[in-house]
Amino acid sequence: MSHTQGELLYEGKAKRIFNVSGESQLIWQEFKDSFTAFNGEKKAEMKGKGQINRAIASLIFQKLKDQKIPSHWVADSGDIHMITQKLEMIDLEVVVRNVLAGSTAKKLGMAEGTALEKPLVEFYYKKDELGDPFISDDQALLLKTVRHDSDLQKLKDRALQVNAVMLKMFDEAGIRLIDFKLEFGYDSAGEILLGDEISPDSCRLWDKQTNEKMDKDRFRRDLGDVLENYQEVLNRLTK
Amino acid sequence: MSHTQGELLYEGKAKRIFNVSGESQLIWQEFKDSFTAFNGEKKAEMKGKGQINRAIASLIFQKLKDQKIPSHWVADSGDIHMITQKLEMIDLEVVVRNVLAGSTAKKLGMAEGTALEKPLVEFYYKKDELGDPFISDDQALLLKTVRHDSDLQKLKDRALQVNAVMLKMFDEAGIRLIDFKLEFGYDSAGEILLGDEISPDSCRLWDKQTNEKMDKDRFRRDLGDVLENYQEVLNRLTK
Repeated sequence: MSHTQGELLYEGKAKRIFNVSGESQLIWQEFKDSFTAFNGEKKAEMKGKGQINRAIASLIFQKLKDQKIPSHWVADSGDIHMITQKLEMIDLEVVVRNVLAGSTAKKLGMAEGTALEKPLVEFYYKKDELGDPFISDDQALLLKTVRHDSDLQKLKDRALQVNAVMLKMFDEAGIRLIDFKLEFGYDSAGEILLGDEISPDSCRLWDKQTNEKMDKDRFRRDLGDVLENYQEVLNRLTK
Repeated sequence: MSHTQGELLYEGKAKRIFNVSGESQLIWQEFKDSFTAFNGEKKAEMKGKGQINRAIASLIFQKLKDQKIPSHWVADSGDIHMITQKLEMIDLEVVVRNVLAGSTAKKLGMAEGTALEKPLVEFYYKKDELGDPFISDDQALLLKTVRHDSDLQKLKDRALQVNAVMLKMFDEAGIRLIDFKLEFGYDSAGEILLGDEISPDSCRLWDKQTNEKMDKDRFRRDLGDVLENYQEVLNRLTK
């Protein structure tokens, strides 16, 4: 089935979102070449980034679909475009950690690189103006982020299922999946679907042999070879 | 039964802890006249403060005991002394909120003074060197703060029971119980008991008519009449 790009609905930091002509339940997503970090304070453009991220995200959504894990992904539509289902997004960033890194390691007083006995799922309240604060399950319920209280456990279960599939996928590509961020939403039938994207922008990925970073931390921390590493992730996943 | 003060075990910011002679499972607590805030950066001494806090804490522990809620409190022993059971403390501060105030109101983007539909229970990891960070239930389990995973729910249930008793007690004294902090520990039989103290140092208490603060925020925010307000809380609770 072929789709036609409709009018622009919204431009975000990493994507432009369009209608799909004649399809009220579909969305046309365009992956931009821009990098942003630290709540938009650090910015850059790198030609080809959108294409790589779209390709990686599609590979992961396809793999999840094979494993019966539902996402908003419908089809690709050229290099930087993806057709997805329209969702009413849940105002939570759902973070899964296999290995402690970054601010959470520091907060808990544990060394960066500590492997966890079992994965940790965390919720962050998605509000730019509040700086996306870390919240507890009870606070997520207080804030009425989900339609039904039991949906919170569904998000955790779903996030752990996604983790299991991705751990295997990246391990076979010689990459350690340290942590990653997911976003979910409700479709028109009220079902919870995985939304947004999964890419080196939203994951910490370390080379299995060297522990070299292959993700957006290269941009955040000025480590260089940002796009080369994103491309290498894609190459290894398609090998 | 009369107890004899043993040797000093430990001196903290607000208390000195002694052995009880010939009693291996008891502790002799002395309430100091000192105020500290902001992780010890702000300090003061106010004569009579220890006596007031000991009296308020005893009143609350006695009321909880009447309601079959177990705490470490055994008996008073003069103006600033209390005999308690020895506990192995759990490294959590358990906070109960009836009304949003302070940093949590700001973090969640809600107005200070917002009354909650149902009380919120929060965990903070009790580590001075980490600044007592807010943690989720899953992080509290990861950090092995409790002996059994199910103990975390016990702490929540117990905290809500304490809240119900205190809400009534303070309401009858013309005081709004905004929020408060509890600490728990395991006794020698492995039972979870309420420990530490409950006083205007560890509660937010607002006058029911005027919403005037009657707690440690008077010290933190330099509002004056600190001890007068502590004494007024005690007077109202004993009326």
